[in-house]
Amino acid sequence: MHAGLHTASGQFEARGFPEVSPPASVFPTIFESTSAIPMKASRFFVSTLKEAPADAEVASHRLMMRAGMIKKLGTGIYTYMPMGLRVIRKVEAIVREEMNRAGAVELTMPVVQPAEFWQETGRFDKMGPELLRIKDRHDRDFVVQPTSEEVVTDIARQEIRSYKQLPKNFYQIQTKFRDERRPRFGLMRGREFIMKDAYSFDRDLGAAKASYQVMADAYRRIFDRFGLRYRAVAADSGAIGGDLSEEFQVIAATGEDAIVYCPGSDYAANMEKAEALAPAGPRPAAAKPLEKTPTPGKSTCADVAELLGVPLSTTVKSLVLATDIVDEAGNLKGSQVWLLLLRGDHDMNEIKVGKVPGLDQGFRFATLAEIDDHFGCKPGYLGPLNLKKPVRLVADREVVVMADWITGANEIDFHMTGVNWGRDLPEPELVADLRNVVAGDASPDGKGVLAIERGIEVGHVFVLGTKYSKDMNATYLDEAGKPQFLEMGCYGIGITRLPAAAIEQNHDERGIIWPDALAPFTVVVCPIGMDRSAEVKVAAEALYEQLLVAGVDVLLDDRGERPGAMFADWELIGVPHRVVISDRGLKEGQLEYQHRRDTAATKVPTAGIAEFITGKLAK
Amino acid sequence: MHAGLHTASGQFEARGFPEVSPPASVFPTIFESTSAIPMKASRFFVSTLKEAPADAEVASHRLMMRAGMIKKLGTGIYTYMPMGLRVIRKVEAIVREEMNRAGAVELTMPVVQPAEFWQETGRFDKMGPELLRIKDRHDRDFVVQPTSEEVVTDIARQEIRSYKQLPKNFYQIQTKFRDERRPRFGLMRGREFIMKDAYSFDRDLGAAKASYQVMADAYRRIFDRFGLRYRAVAADSGAIGGDLSEEFQVIAATGEDAIVYCPGSDYAANMEKAEALAPAGPRPAAAKPLEKTPTPGKSTCADVAELLGVPLSTTVKSLVLATDIVDEAGNLKGSQVWLLLLRGDHDMNEIKVGKVPGLDQGFRFATLAEIDDHFGCKPGYLGPLNLKKPVRLVADREVVVMADWITGANEIDFHMTGVNWGRDLPEPELVADLRNVVAGDASPDGKGVLAIERGIEVGHVFVLGTKYSKDMNATYLDEAGKPQFLEMGCYGIGITRLPAAAIEQNHDERGIIWPDALAPFTVVVCPIGMDRSAEVKVAAEALYEQLLVAGVDVLLDDRGERPGAMFADWELIGVPHRVVISDRGLKEGQLEYQHRRDTAATKVPTAGIAEFITGKLAK
Repeated sequence: MHAGLHTASGQFEARGFPEVSPPASVFPTIFESTSAIPMKASRFFVSTLKEAPADAEVASHRLMMRAGMIKKLGTGIYTYMPMGLRVIRKVEAIVREEMNRAGAVELTMPVVQPAEFWQETGRFDKMGPELLRIKDRHDRDFVVQPTSEEVVTDIARQEIRSYKQLPKNFYQIQTKFRDERRPRFGLMRGREFIMKDAYSFDRDLGAAKASYQVMADAYRRIFDRFGLRYRAVAADSGAIGGDLSEEFQVIAATGEDAIVYCPGSDYAANMEKAEALAPAGPRPAAAKPLEKTPTPGKSTCADVAELLGVPLSTTVKSLVLATDIVDEAGNLKGSQVWLLLLRGDHDMNEIKVGKVPGLDQGFRFATLAEIDDHFGCKPGYLGPLNLKKPVRLVADREVVVMADWITGANEIDFHMTGVNWGRDLPEPELVADLRNVVAGDASPDGKGVLAIERGIEVGHVFVLGTKYSKDMNATYLDEAGKPQFLEMGCYGIGITRLPAAAIEQNHDERGIIWPDALAPFTVVVCPIGMDRSAEVKVAAEALYEQLLVAGVDVLLDDRGERPGAMFADWELIGVPHRVVISDRGLKEGQLEYQHRRDTAATKVPTAGIAEFITGKLAK
Repeated sequence: MHAGLHTASGQFEARGFPEVSPPASVFPTIFESTSAIPMKASRFFVSTLKEAPADAEVASHRLMMRAGMIKKLGTGIYTYMPMGLRVIRKVEAIVREEMNRAGAVELTMPVVQPAEFWQETGRFDKMGPELLRIKDRHDRDFVVQPTSEEVVTDIARQEIRSYKQLPKNFYQIQTKFRDERRPRFGLMRGREFIMKDAYSFDRDLGAAKASYQVMADAYRRIFDRFGLRYRAVAADSGAIGGDLSEEFQVIAATGEDAIVYCPGSDYAANMEKAEALAPAGPRPAAAKPLEKTPTPGKSTCADVAELLGVPLSTTVKSLVLATDIVDEAGNLKGSQVWLLLLRGDHDMNEIKVGKVPGLDQGFRFATLAEIDDHFGCKPGYLGPLNLKKPVRLVADREVVVMADWITGANEIDFHMTGVNWGRDLPEPELVADLRNVVAGDASPDGKGVLAIERGIEVGHVFVLGTKYSKDMNATYLDEAGKPQFLEMGCYGIGITRLPAAAIEQNHDERGIIWPDALAPFTVVVCPIGMDRSAEVKVAAEALYEQLLVAGVDVLLDDRGERPGAMFADWELIGVPHRVVISDRGLKEGQLEYQHRRDTAATKVPTAGIAEFITGKLAK
């Protein structure tokens, strides 16, 4: 029997695995860190694979699987293995520190949440199958949280009574679940994931904007510390308007998002948001006659331009939309058909279209019946001339300055060429920015032309306004004792997505290349023949302890692997700094240092190795 | 627009809330701690209540609610508010450090787990409504993990190939869910909770026992560091047998569990496990005649003893059990009735009864029909004499040494007195330990007598054997290249239950009294009239920064509350060390220090206050 009454005065000797402990001054005891425990590979868990599973389509997924950082349990559901968890913990630690520094206060909301809160805001019904729903033993509805706006608003309406308590910002780093239709790319689009979500509460929109700015600044510090190339890009903020939404995008050629920036200034926005300015010059004068030109079987702008031997940019495409007309009782009374004209080489931007007056309450693509009714023709040959019934016409800013353009004739196998505003059809009723920008467009800030690159969204800051506080009646009392709705903001960082994004940006054919701040270990000490050579063993352990005491996150690979396999492991895992200790080197008084990005090792005198390495880290 | 390309070389200046940062040497950067950020009450979230909600039945629930540590979201589901989360993080940090020190490796398994793994072990069907089940958008079954034996065994069967990889111990600190029938007592018996669960894998039972011992030792270090009075008590280890299960119980008068210990030795066990030794002396000689005595309406031993004016310990109670007889095809062929005899003042111990040969494959209480068939009487007057049909008789160790005892006559309203073994009925066929021990019983280790106190189970270490590895075919290859089942152990600590248990043990009428290691803040600096007195403000901030730099987890209460309210808050919250700074004190060159357990403050010269406090903590 092993028992008896124990108290704090009991002894602390390390039974089991006695190990060297770093001096207390290096590792404080308040919230003791994972790294306070010496790490030798034999006591850790290193598990690498030669081949990635077939379903791993992107580099980060392949490499995290091969490096033993994650393990698939089900579709979009992964165990964070010891090597991967260390990276996640480093992400969390940086996020937590900067959130605290910015005055946010950490709490932890439940993963399983009663549906009643989600019903208050209507999201329980609106969210669709992405929201994972549960019934408990009493048949009551619950959800697994995908975010926590409802719960944090419930906390705020109970806790925040007076303007004196504002501003307040609560955050959590917690497990989330979204039942994605197509989970893929490992941690990039998983179903279960860890997110940092923060929610600010303010007395008015001005104060909410200030809280937003504090968070936007904290995010810059966070992403700076991660050591990744990223852009903070303006994003559409929906009904709120103004510059109140930014995405933090890690630059990577494999990114899902197109991000727009101006190399000559600090302008950056996502594709949804980036504005296409009206062209600077005036419309050229009409030079060609209006003609109906046969274009048999050519139903796309590209085909027509090729047939006619003209640039695609001289063609105009017709997009037919419709809005429903309902009476006050909500009964459908008919529809209004809209014709949007865009240059043939441009793509429609749905967010922008949704801001056109008249289309801003919702729109849809017109039905074939509606199209036939107004154009007397089927899609492929539609245009603004010779309409059967009038439509509302909206021209893109670029289209309105075109002359002698080409568009559908509303007759199968025919297009109109030499079309000119004013002469052949009236000036457009509405002109708007309807399209995605393209590289080379003028920057909205007038400081050059736009470029486009790919990014992975890993953070988002957003002013929510009073949507949730109104739905849930979350108010505070102002100076006059009058209840006012709380102005909210929300701020997310994809904690488990971040390592995947970092890998997409930083890898080569041998494996991952972590920035120091995110590496599972910053330095790996690789002794060659540690089991055969007492000198190697002594030197390796001495260096390892020296680095440990200096506060370096170092791992000693004491597994006894052969050099080739050992090096391949750490190159795959992506530890940025490696020191090799060999018998031959020691005889020469030298060790070999190599950064993961270096093509060859650097010989460093044994005596100065610790300073050499800490110098590399300090950079 | 706030954008542009940022890199790690970007500047780090603190925008938003500039604050004093402690020197880097105090807070290392590897896994930076929550406490690295200066804590002032105005930037934190302090929210106390005068009254606890009506459903808070126990002290820990009441006090955690009143101190603003937890907030109820639904039945058995709580948000960990900032003040409570700090306590939980301190529990986690100590657990994590000692688990790492003991050679366990941290990973994080999913909260939402595919049912297929739970079907492999049969627990998906066996576990009942306590297991929260989900269907995803594709109607596939999932569970919210209550523990992770299945998932970790799946990891082991994939990852552990050779005996060379053993032993291995994986652990996680992760959200769990059990859909309890009666959630209550706040975090003590919630539905969602945080548990540290560890799982060891070994080559054979001997190695598994060694891994178990490493964990049992680590648990002692963990509970020592928490600063709580606790006992590690032997628990029943089910089919495995031997001393392979211990519970860690925090001593508290309000505990749900009875724990048995010997004040004169280190023997301790839970009630299920604690052995009642056979009495030392021989059976006294028969001194009374056997008589049928009228006991009208007296159907309990207590009533009979009172009627006859004899001690309860001279009576014997009859418990009638039954075992089903089935043929090889599993068809029910009949039943065997058992009569268990216990002293009238003793309680049956089901676990012990379940180990009696013949009862160890399952038993039930006999039906009224079976009782009537064998005893010719209804319960209340049953006994071993004058049976209608033979039964199998098992006597408790204590009963077999009794003489002149009293038991039912198998006739309504009559008992037999002066009953004696050998003379009036044969010596019992089976003698066994069938009862719960009581205070004053001899200790099984022969070193005195047993005492009983109440405890709250907060940890459990357990050898699992090969149950899961056999169900899931988790094997490794031994030296001969032969597959062998992995021997497992599991080790839990209730991370969110621990603070509740700590409070049950450490509170008074004013609030919580945290041990230093668990307190949300170790020291609170309370300035009186900080807004009115520049001297107080300067002295308070100087002391606060001095303690911060010394690595003390200190909070400065700069809210401007009046002294009474401020003191009441911190006494309720339970911060162990308080320093009060007032104008009057400063004029006298003195500050007031008070430990939460002290009845009065101690005056300490201003000059020496920081050393005084760190001295108090060092103790």
